[in-house]
Amino acid sequence: MNEYKLLIDTTDEKGLVYNISKILFNHNLNIETNSEYVDKDVNKFFMRTVISGDFDKTILLEQLHSTLPKDATIKLSKNTKKNIIILVTKEAHCLGDILIRHMSGELDGNIIAVIANHDTLKDLVEKFEIPFICISHERVERETHEKMMIEAIDNFNPDLIVLAKYMRILNPLFVDHFKNKILNIHHSFLPAFIGANPYKQAWERGVKIIGATAHYVTSDLDEGPIVSQDIVRVDHTYSWQDMRDAGRNVEKVVLSNALNLLLNDKVFIYGNKTVIL
Amino acid sequence: MNEYKLLIDTTDEKGLVYNISKILFNHNLNIETNSEYVDKDVNKFFMRTVISGDFDKTILLEQLHSTLPKDATIKLSKNTKKNIIILVTKEAHCLGDILIRHMSGELDGNIIAVIANHDTLKDLVEKFEIPFICISHERVERETHEKMMIEAIDNFNPDLIVLAKYMRILNPLFVDHFKNKILNIHHSFLPAFIGANPYKQAWERGVKIIGATAHYVTSDLDEGPIVSQDIVRVDHTYSWQDMRDAGRNVEKVVLSNALNLLLNDKVFIYGNKTVIL
Amino acid sequence: MNEYKLLIDTTDEKGLVYNISKILFNHNLNIETNSEYVDKDVNKFFMRTVISGDFDKTILLEQLHSTLPKDATIKLSKNTKKNIIILVTKEAHCLGDILIRHMSGELDGNIIAVIANHDTLKDLVEKFEIPFICISHERVERETHEKMMIEAIDNFNPDLIVLAKYMRILNPLFVDHFKNKILNIHHSFLPAFIGANPYKQAWERGVKIIGATAHYVTSDLDEGPIVSQDIVRVDHTYSWQDMRDAGRNVEKVVLSNALNLLLNDKVFIYGNKTVIL
Amino acid sequence: MNEYKLLIDTTDEKGLVYNISKILFNHNLNIETNSEYVDKDVNKFFMRTVISGDFDKTILLEQLHSTLPKDATIKLSKNTKKNIIILVTKEAHCLGDILIRHMSGELDGNIIAVIANHDTLKDLVEKFEIPFICISHERVERETHEKMMIEAIDNFNPDLIVLAKYMRILNPLFVDHFKNKILNIHHSFLPAFIGANPYKQAWERGVKIIGATAHYVTSDLDEGPIVSQDIVRVDHTYSWQDMRDAGRNVEKVVLSNALNLLLNDKVFIYGNKTVIL
Repeated sequence: MNEYKLLIDTTDEKGLVYNISKILFNHNLNIETNSEYVDKDVNKFFMRTVISGDFDKTILLEQLHSTLPKDATIKLSKNTKKNIIILVTKEAHCLGDILIRHMSGELDGNIIAVIANHDTLKDLVEKFEIPFICISHERVERETHEKMMIEAIDNFNPDLIVLAKYMRILNPLFVDHFKNKILNIHHSFLPAFIGANPYKQAWERGVKIIGATAHYVTSDLDEGPIVSQDIVRVDHTYSWQDMRDAGRNVEKVVLSNALNLLLNDKVFIYGNKTVIL
Repeated sequence: MNEYKLLIDTTDEKGLVYNISKILFNHNLNIETNSEYVDKDVNKFFMRTVISGDFDKTILLEQLHSTLPKDATIKLSKNTKKNIIILVTKEAHCLGDILIRHMSGELDGNIIAVIANHDTLKDLVEKFEIPFICISHERVERETHEKMMIEAIDNFNPDLIVLAKYMRILNPLFVDHFKNKILNIHHSFLPAFIGANPYKQAWERGVKIIGATAHYVTSDLDEGPIVSQDIVRVDHTYSWQDMRDAGRNVEKVVLSNALNLLLNDKVFIYGNKTVIL
Repeated sequence: MNEYKLLIDTTDEKGLVYNISKILFNHNLNIETNSEYVDKDVNKFFMRTVISGDFDKTILLEQLHSTLPKDATIKLSKNTKKNIIILVTKEAHCLGDILIRHMSGELDGNIIAVIANHDTLKDLVEKFEIPFICISHERVERETHEKMMIEAIDNFNPDLIVLAKYMRILNPLFVDHFKNKILNIHHSFLPAFIGANPYKQAWERGVKIIGATAHYVTSDLDEGPIVSQDIVRVDHTYSWQDMRDAGRNVEKVVLSNALNLLLNDKVFIYGNKTVIL
Repeated sequence: MNEYKLLIDTTDEKGLVYNISKILFNHNLNIETNSEYVDKDVNKFFMRTVISGDFDKTILLEQLHSTLPKDATIKLSKNTKKNIIILVTKEAHCLGDILIRHMSGELDGNIIAVIANHDTLKDLVEKFEIPFICISHERVERETHEKMMIEAIDNFNPDLIVLAKYMRILNPLFVDHFKNKILNIHHSFLPAFIGANPYKQAWERGVKIIGATAHYVTSDLDEGPIVSQDIVRVDHTYSWQDMRDAGRNVEKVVLSNALNLLLNDKVFIYGNKTVIL
């Protein structure tokens, strides 16, 4: 018996739950979990249902489309593992955390390749028998480099691209090509300390808390919809390097949590926000 | 136009959401918010819906009862403020926090009286023009004292009894009389440090974190369903009094958060757990 | 026997601890607690020692001054309660929290008056028999209003001014007049969401965490040295008003914690940072 | 020029700081960092100083011993990396985290071997070119197995033994043999949920927070001095497996933080507590 995730995202209107549940009921489906959310301010309805049973996928989708508002987005995805490409530069902590989870079966996804602009992490990745591709940005125009990256990624046709401390700014060319498919970990409590070396900025400001933010990447740098955030406490005895080290613990946990949400289709994007069901 | 909270708690079965939403749809109700949860392990379904519109309350309830499983608990409560009795002993922090919220309109409930076994907090309560009743436990048998408390509380017929650092053990007589109506704040991270002086216990154990737990009171002391918990970090420089002071901040915030959930009918009890919708 | 707090803040040099401890030893003082911190980056030394015993205050200070570097700041303050003026506008949560602590003896300071630019909180303050002074900013030039505030505060000669949700921007005239004496609670996780209505900004950004920051006020608005910060978790179901309510819990706890540090002379300011000993 | 850590742990008495700082001053040492703590309740003094310079180690120690109280423990350790043995059973998350840190140079220690009672993690460990020794407990008496473990560990003469989810109960024979050298991660918020399957216990209790505790191992199971604790929030939607997964994130971070403190000689044990300087 098959298990599917049904994801609906539409303008809200009276009777939506009734109309959807009637269709599901008539297909004699089992509802494993069901979550809905309505944002009254923008009149939007979101639903995530895990269903199982023997049913005709095409007919179900047709019925839903003919019943729901015209602008409805309806996704019915089989409960299979998504394919992930990880982009990195030199830092091992986020990548290492994902590799360990992958190896021990804790990750609900397949890492199909790691692509980097430095070869620092080659050894680590190859220990885990995962393809490592280095596309250096040196002596290459920025745009050319980005096109090489896009091409390399497209070869794998991934469901998701994870920037696990990939320290290059991405241009709209790249971001639009992989729209709503790129997850980034930002080494600060966004929207504070945007830009370069946020730990040094935080240290100079004398903060008592360090944060990390996992967010979708949009063409506005560091401004995409936030998926997950967490913090760690610091004090005046921390150098900025200590703050960075403390921040790394938060970064890897926040990124892994966010990745887990995306792999399980739990995140809806609307406007510049996320709904997590 | 009236707003009601519809709370359903029943054995799970196929078609529940469909059947309920059909009834609501046929009454032409507006659904303001809707949350459901199914616990697959125990096959239980929980739903909290805020509905508005002109409808016949009696017919709606009849239809729901005839459609839902026999064991279903269905509550339809008007969106009015609940009446609260607060029980205290000598400590001001939790009581004070609730009084300030009450005065500034932040509390979704009415404090109708404060009852204490000491008169320490009389001045504070009367500043806020709320009745203060002192029922001393001195020179009275335990059982007699408890009966006096029950009688005093019954006079007010409250919806909710909040133990805001009421430092007396309650017997089944009391607890059963106010079944599922008593909220307590326990000054520790339950189930750790059950019993007397948990801050001293925590200090002796050298803990690095202090917690607080708000829970429903059942006849098993400190064992009722947990509604809310939070923590604060401490270290070796804290005396046990410092831990207690740090703990007080957490206690008052946890109790207020839990109280807020109860006042908004967001908490379902089942077994020894809560579902918060 | 008297208890004093000795606070030293100076350029670091070899032998400082030896030289200071020799002087203290020769006065036959008891050292109740002692904390030091050296910031190697800026070559600064900080020490906070609580001493008791029968000693000649003048001689002790003379000896310390002649031994320590020329730029040393040396404070020897008797362990008495500081006098506090609280400034408010309309919100009760921070003020209420401080008043409750004050009344129940938890605050290591005396509230000598509350000054406001609205009379909303008059009732609350007067319940606690504390002078309430309203200096409306309506129909008054900004500068004139600030001068009236300064004059009113000067009448009380306070050790500390607490902005407990005082929603007026302070000009250098005011800030310089009370240099290093003003503590503010900022309703956000500084440096994020500077400016008006940070909760609405946070909500629009879809954050998953709300913070609050207590900081000294300097002439750079929202840029003074941070004393204390904390956070609370939120999610997509929170309206911006819900975020504000959740934030209020954090605001009052963070402000009270910071106030407690200042009342116990535990905070050193240097550059735009604090050292907390 | 050499850097040393000087660790002093002694009965408190007047003039201690003066006497110690005089000796250090006369050796013309540089003091890189200095922390002290006095526990007034038990009259104990703790000091951790990082010193550098050209000095005679033997003379310095002699002078300190002749000046300090007879019961003083004085350690002067060169700033070199400690050797670590990691004990594991089947779970990869804590071990993996330490291996990644080790590989990327974030760990201030050398992992000299991993010893396990199952061979599940052999592949992972050998990827990192670290010796993996499996000593199965099957078909072996408990005591015999423990002796084999002791012998295997003794061969490496480690400074520190880390139980990174080693799921065997250790007897006094083992614990006494490696007194104050064993760090454990307990998968709960000690002292709550002692014993088997704490996540299931936590889930049955309906907790809203999951914790983890890193502690020294003493012969009282789960009762040794706590080094570090942290928590993560959960809710009614978590199965006990979800709680375990959430707990794993906390476990690995808490264990790594505690390990870092031990590797830097920042932890003093006294009674059943720790002082962290």
